[in-house]
Amino acid sequence: MGAVKTKRMPRAVREQQMLDAAVRTFGRRGYRAASMDEIAELAGVSKPLVYLYLNSKDDLFATCIRREAAALTDAVRTAVRPDVPVDRQLWDGLRAFFTHTAEHPDGWSLLHLRARTGGEPFAAEVTAMREELVALVTRLIVSATREACRDPHVPEYEVAGLAEALVGAAESLAGWSNGTPDVTARQAAATLMNFAWSGLGNLLDGRPWAPPVDDGRTTS
Amino acid sequence: MGAVKTKRMPRAVREQQMLDAAVRTFGRRGYRAASMDEIAELAGVSKPLVYLYLNSKDDLFATCIRREAAALTDAVRTAVRPDVPVDRQLWDGLRAFFTHTAEHPDGWSLLHLRARTGGEPFAAEVTAMREELVALVTRLIVSATREACRDPHVPEYEVAGLAEALVGAAESLAGWSNGTPDVTARQAAATLMNFAWSGLGNLLDGRPWAPPVDDGRTTS
Repeated sequence: MGAVKTKRMPRAVREQQMLDAAVRTFGRRGYRAASMDEIAELAGVSKPLVYLYLNSKDDLFATCIRREAAALTDAVRTAVRPDVPVDRQLWDGLRAFFTHTAEHPDGWSLLHLRARTGGEPFAAEVTAMREELVALVTRLIVSATREACRDPHVPEYEVAGLAEALVGAAESLAGWSNGTPDVTARQAAATLMNFAWSGLGNLLDGRPWAPPVDDGRTTS
Repeated sequence: MGAVKTKRMPRAVREQQMLDAAVRTFGRRGYRAASMDEIAELAGVSKPLVYLYLNSKDDLFATCIRREAAALTDAVRTAVRPDVPVDRQLWDGLRAFFTHTAEHPDGWSLLHLRARTGGEPFAAEVTAMREELVALVTRLIVSATREACRDPHVPEYEVAGLAEALVGAAESLAGWSNGTPDVTARQAAATLMNFAWSGLGNLLDGRPWAPPVDDGRTTS
């Protein structure tokens, strides 16, 4: 990037350039190790201009997290169309998730790994985004239980647990596939569908996994 | 706890008390917000004694992370016996994982949420622990593919992806079940078995999840 001449550029455009540079720097280095000098240099502007536009390092970090969280949840929400079968909704949502995290690796690193390096207020922003994704998946699982032919008797805590498990698995796979050459967003999504949807399918068909017969309730 | 008289207590015992207090404090507050005064007070010793035994806040944080990571991986490793069927190994390992994280919520919070608040060297300790758990799960999945009657042709990247997904799901469920009253370690483990083992079972039976037929390769 380097020092680019940015005179007479609209404020909104210049601000987005600063945020792009900040997401890249915070995403790679974390809150403390990232310097405002580096961010300004990468954005091709002066450091005072970064402070003028975005106020403080704390505000800049918060704005980056909010922008990246909103972009990710928007990508997933837009991909999931309520008028198609539930497995298709989940497949579309997962592909959107893995495509977005692959195309924005620094943004994903900021949300998943670096947000906590700035302290609790920033972690809370990521928690809010995560809760939105868990709520979306919960809604899909509830729809799936309604679509199932047999009454699957999936307890409410299990629906909640399955949604948490699926989101945790997706987060883990996003980091892994970003660090693994040749694993595409589509492959990561298919791996998770194999893992999640097939298991859920068995559950909805009234065939939950059963503990081994010699397994007493004594061990925990 | 308060200020307890601890004179003539063996060094090893006193050191464990300090580490217990430090894990609790770091696990609840994170690196920066935790004070050495609070840790010393909670351990019932003077602050100079904490520094004498454990050197610095950085060293204390690192020692806590190492102790908690070793305790968790030991609990899981000990529970998984290689002479039983693979689904039993996974079930035993998951119950050990969720039992341990439920019994050590501050330790789990330290590993899962707080390690990054201290910076990169501490995050690396947690990454090492995580890699050990992923390796253990990978070994289980490979054993399962060998046990399967049909040759399931599960590609190597998919085995790696499934292991990452399972560990990510377990991490997510541990945080959720610690924060959800009445969800036992056994229930969390059964939820994950429903999710993971049933899906894996379909895959090994040569019935992978298939994308919808109208799903072209154009969308990602």
